Amino acid sequence: MNLDRYRDFVRETERKYINVNPIQRGGVLTPEARKALLEFGDGYSVCDFCEGLLHEIEKPPIRQFHEDLAEFLGMDLVRITAGARYAKEAVMSALCGEGDVIVADSLAHYTTFIAAEKVGAMVREVPNTGHPEYRVKVDEYARVIDEVEEERGDPPALALLTHVDSEYGNLADAERFVKICRKKGVPALLNCAYTMGRMDLSNLSPKPDFMVGSGHKGMAACAPCGVLAMRGEWEEVVLRGSSLRGDVSGREWPHKEVEMLGCTVMGAPIVTMMASFPHVVERVRRWEEEVEKTRWFVKEMERIEGVRQLGERPKRHDLVKFETPGFQEVANNHPKRGYFLYKELKKRGIIGIQPGQTETIKASVYGLTDEQVEHVVRAFHEIAEEHGLEVS
Amino acid sequence: MNLDRYRDFVRETERKYINVNPIQRGGVLTPEARKALLEFGDGYSVCDFCEGLLHEIEKPPIRQFHEDLAEFLGMDLVRITAGARYAKEAVMSALCGEGDVIVADSLAHYTTFIAAEKVGAMVREVPNTGHPEYRVKVDEYARVIDEVEEERGDPPALALLTHVDSEYGNLADAERFVKICRKKGVPALLNCAYTMGRMDLSNLSPKPDFMVGSGHKGMAACAPCGVLAMRGEWEEVVLRGSSLRGDVSGREWPHKEVEMLGCTVMGAPIVTMMASFPHVVERVRRWEEEVEKTRWFVKEMERIEGVRQLGERPKRHDLVKFETPGFQEVANNHPKRGYFLYKELKKRGIIGIQPGQTETIKASVYGLTDEQVEHVVRAFHEIAEEHGLEVS
Repeated sequence: MNLDRYRDFVRETERKYINVNPIQRGGVLTPEARKALLEFGDGYSVCDFCEGLLHEIEKPPIRQFHEDLAEFLGMDLVRITAGARYAKEAVMSALCGEGDVIVADSLAHYTTFIAAEKVGAMVREVPNTGHPEYRVKVDEYARVIDEVEEERGDPPALALLTHVDSEYGNLADAERFVKICRKKGVPALLNCAYTMGRMDLSNLSPKPDFMVGSGHKGMAACAPCGVLAMRGEWEEVVLRGSSLRGDVSGREWPHKEVEMLGCTVMGAPIVTMMASFPHVVERVRRWEEEVEKTRWFVKEMERIEGVRQLGERPKRHDLVKFETPGFQEVANNHPKRGYFLYKELKKRGIIGIQPGQTETIKASVYGLTDEQVEHVVRAFHEIAEEHGLEVS
Repeated sequence: MNLDRYRDFVRETERKYINVNPIQRGGVLTPEARKALLEFGDGYSVCDFCEGLLHEIEKPPIRQFHEDLAEFLGMDLVRITAGARYAKEAVMSALCGEGDVIVADSLAHYTTFIAAEKVGAMVREVPNTGHPEYRVKVDEYARVIDEVEEERGDPPALALLTHVDSEYGNLADAERFVKICRKKGVPALLNCAYTMGRMDLSNLSPKPDFMVGSGHKGMAACAPCGVLAMRGEWEEVVLRGSSLRGDVSGREWPHKEVEMLGCTVMGAPIVTMMASFPHVVERVRRWEEEVEKTRWFVKEMERIEGVRQLGERPKRHDLVKFETPGFQEVANNHPKRGYFLYKELKKRGIIGIQPGQTETIKASVYGLTDEQVEHVVRAFHEIAEEHGLEVS
């Protein structure tokens, strides 16, 4: 066993680059979070004053953070989970039985399917408009819900909408979705992995039953952590306490929440989420600036021969997918094949484009300074021109 | 919303103290892990070179780490989970149906029950010898398994033994347990939350079907992370790929492991686990020194009037529980009640004793230097004498 690789890997970090991978942008730690990390890195460091439940710890202020985070989201209560996927799984585990149906959008993240599969449920998809905009047809939730009910005699156990999807960065109509679900009597879960921590979600009306987010994707926190927010009426179902009892020992744990597996996220992820929280509260107010920055980025990218932004126009989110047939043609004739683009970008201090990928690319300039965005645009323009593509 | 509390809490750290809480000792980060933390704190920082599966990432060396960790444990393969509880839940979710029975020791951690409850299973306990040693009667797994089979016509879906329990720190006979389970045809899970990363587990014979551990409890890693190790024959059951397919989108994810919810632990926990791994490999070789240190600590503590170590004698693990009726009597007559002990220890630079608790106390001196252990002992002796208890 060569243990030296575990002594060396830290030196090979990519942190000095501008990373335009959309999954990375919202999880970059704040300076405050970095400081918190060093103080609370040790395994159970937040548990010094625990009296039995993580979410009730007063020092550090975890209990208060749960209240403030719920207020920030406009929801009644929250729990921190090991990621958005665990939050979805907890809700599905509580609400869905074997063979139940969940209705979800056809852009839903793969973890929506995997979480459903783990609890034995099936998924029925709501269509989108297809190429090039791929807008989820939110109105069709009504039809799909009706169809499920007709076929099975029961309504779906849950409906889920991906607020902003991870493929095209389209912003779906959450309020319309919740209205339809409420009318049909189906609990509504809004997957906000790409919106929580970026956009102000506190004014949604009507409120979804559940709102799920990601700490490492959107709240400037260490992985792995997520957020499960809910309306108060679901507390007894989704956060029910344990009812098992040891038949020999007589032990029981009525205060431990079954779907959370007791306590959830100690240490680094929760302290970084808390330390970054003032910054996150402040940055959601600047969301419109981010959208403007993204639109400028799209405009500049589309000056490159063949580049076309996919998904809704104009953009209402920083995650952008481009068709890039020009780069694909270059790749076909390049000795490095599709890797040329990755390598050319890296030479210019930019990473985050899937290595080898040139048919389409995904990128985000969220949280970058204007100078950085200009540098990214200049790099793409240069690479295009150096490889014989026109920049208008 | 007072956001200043999230700006201040880091300054109020308890890290400068000696922490004798047994859940804390094995999760103290190494200097190498602290360095890794700062480089890889950002949300998805390990995912720069991901081609679709976290456990196959080559840089940082996550794929190789999975192989090396399996070798270190003497098991066929491992996955990193969000904690030992998630590892148990994954196995139970794969192996147990609604109403199935899991046989577990009567000292099992509460998360064994909660994980069982989450998947709809029931738990039957194997007795222990009771006060003062509380040794699990491992031979009785045979009887309880037989009883379950007799009552239900089917054997239990799983048997679980807590290798070292969190209450008394008793080391249970894992090999005897596995032999019984194998003979009865029941899959055997060994919960090594308190042994993995402390003791060499590579020579167990026969091997359990599953071995579960904790990164933040025993492998000098950030929370939340755990280890699920298994024999190869279970791969297809517990690590099965997704078989759902989007009925509209046609998407499918056959390589994403359902029980893992796809990828598991990115960022801080896994990089700290990897950065600490060379140290952990080395420290398990020094386990006997730790046991000697613990026995000396017990001997010195028992010099205090009324103090008696609970659990097996002599100790074979660093987690120690003491009966402390003398401290309890002091508390009954002290203006600070049970908090006097906590406060007196803290004055001397020691934390980790449950505040308010004096009837029994739990402590560990794992990983402390001889000077630190002497300081802890001296503090207890002083506090005892200052409050009228004899120290022999």
